Amino acid sequence: MSASLVSIVEVGPRDGFQPIGEFIPTALKALLIDMLYDAGIRRMEATAFVSPRAVPQMADAPQLLAHCATKPGLDIQVLVPSQRQAERALAADARHLAFVLSVSPKHNQSNVLRTPQESVEDFRAIVALLPPDAKIRLNLATSFDCPFDGPVDPAATLNLVEALAKVSAEAEYCLCDTTGRVTPDRVGDLFRSAKERFPQLRHWAFHGHDTYGLGVANALAAFNAGVSVIDSSFGGLGGCPFAPGATGNVATEDLIWTFAKMGVATGIDLSRLLEAADKAATLPGACVGGRVRDALNAQTRREEMA
Amino acid sequence: MSASLVSIVEVGPRDGFQPIGEFIPTALKALLIDMLYDAGIRRMEATAFVSPRAVPQMADAPQLLAHCATKPGLDIQVLVPSQRQAERALAADARHLAFVLSVSPKHNQSNVLRTPQESVEDFRAIVALLPPDAKIRLNLATSFDCPFDGPVDPAATLNLVEALAKVSAEAEYCLCDTTGRVTPDRVGDLFRSAKERFPQLRHWAFHGHDTYGLGVANALAAFNAGVSVIDSSFGGLGGCPFAPGATGNVATEDLIWTFAKMGVATGIDLSRLLEAADKAATLPGACVGGRVRDALNAQTRREEMA
Repeated sequence: MSASLVSIVEVGPRDGFQPIGEFIPTALKALLIDMLYDAGIRRMEATAFVSPRAVPQMADAPQLLAHCATKPGLDIQVLVPSQRQAERALAADARHLAFVLSVSPKHNQSNVLRTPQESVEDFRAIVALLPPDAKIRLNLATSFDCPFDGPVDPAATLNLVEALAKVSAEAEYCLCDTTGRVTPDRVGDLFRSAKERFPQLRHWAFHGHDTYGLGVANALAAFNAGVSVIDSSFGGLGGCPFAPGATGNVATEDLIWTFAKMGVATGIDLSRLLEAADKAATLPGACVGGRVRDALNAQTRREEMA
Repeated sequence: MSASLVSIVEVGPRDGFQPIGEFIPTALKALLIDMLYDAGIRRMEATAFVSPRAVPQMADAPQLLAHCATKPGLDIQVLVPSQRQAERALAADARHLAFVLSVSPKHNQSNVLRTPQESVEDFRAIVALLPPDAKIRLNLATSFDCPFDGPVDPAATLNLVEALAKVSAEAEYCLCDTTGRVTPDRVGDLFRSAKERFPQLRHWAFHGHDTYGLGVANALAAFNAGVSVIDSSFGGLGGCPFAPGATGNVATEDLIWTFAKMGVATGIDLSRLLEAADKAATLPGACVGGRVRDALNAQTRREEMA
């Protein structure tokens, strides 16, 4: 099954900026967000409400949220790891929260100091806080593979979805390939199983990393399983600056180039997006990824040399 | 449909070395071939019989062929673009020829100075030359997309296959994505159409480039359409040294890493293959590609730092 359009969630301003050690000035973040918006991005994980001590890069979350709120039609999603941060985000007028928890107990412990079951209770508390005009997404990290424990049993992911589904059937369920180590067959299988088992859940999304070069292949597998909301990061930002080669999120430009070739509409202008990605690539400490940007830049150079 | 094993054709020694301007000493080529063989590669496009004036890098084809012939169980495929070169290859004891022609008339003209129909006649002449113990593959360049004319009509590819099928039903038909611009949906569709239209052809293969990051995705699409012979190049060699970013063949290590995760046997040892790829990456003028090598090297560095 495939749809004729796909909704890209640009996560570069959050997942892409977060691992960059050197603080990106708020005005520069805002400029990059403007460029993304001007390229046609209409949904964005714009920042995270997290401890500024733990993640100084995200300390300007309220200012960025206020900046984004000036843009008509932009669906602004902000990451929150706890009830307390959800309260902070809502107080700053966030109306689309992304709550993150991990299927893998070890990863959840490392990431948010909770068991997955404790995180389900946090989710329950956050849902209770939501004003009527707010939306929530669930980012289920390590839905397929864990950096500590390797492949994750699909049953574990489905069981966690079941516990969460009892709390909210309205949330968007985003299954995340945190390590980039899942293969397209498993992505398709898990989404098909999940959609069959939870007919009451109508909002699914996929979030993948391109570490081993399977970012686009995995996104297409999700798309072919009927998932039309896909996360990606401009410039393929999101890698670890201390481990060259461990590149980050699948690149937005790789996805929209591919979907355009397939006749699937994204509403995003590739050349304007590439301008934003080229600019992001100049950020000190940025680890860029993706392939389409280099390929098209090389093509331009060839044409200029011809 | 999927098979439980896949046969990798390592094309690095031909497609990978060919665009490298600086001559790679024959002994070094032989050493890299040895490393590939020791990693478990059992089918290889080892060299090309082409005009040494036009492609000096391939001038040592007879010596390399003789070197490969010492390796038990190695299926040694050599590229030939014309009847005359096929005669040279057979005289040097080649027993597996790969004849290249292009679906796109403009590309065929540029590559071998023939119309596709003239190349079909060349193929007929070559088939007539083959001793009983020889095999032949057809590399149908630009089966999906042409660097000059863009997307290729599937009907053009299928019609060329039809003309060739009248000459030989025993040949292996390799549909090649020369530009890296095809998407997985089109790869799957074309192979399914071809297999349905030509039930008499039993040997199919796919050859793809990773220029836009779809190399593995396209190979998997071919595999899922029942194609179990896939070309790839160690280190992702095969790019154009004058156009950085225009990377080459899909990397063998990316494919075998992915197939291993999927439980599909390739018979190839990843860590030994990576040694060969690491060595190839040091060749002066080599443009390497792929993602798995960098990701695993980064992982090793992380572990060493931990």
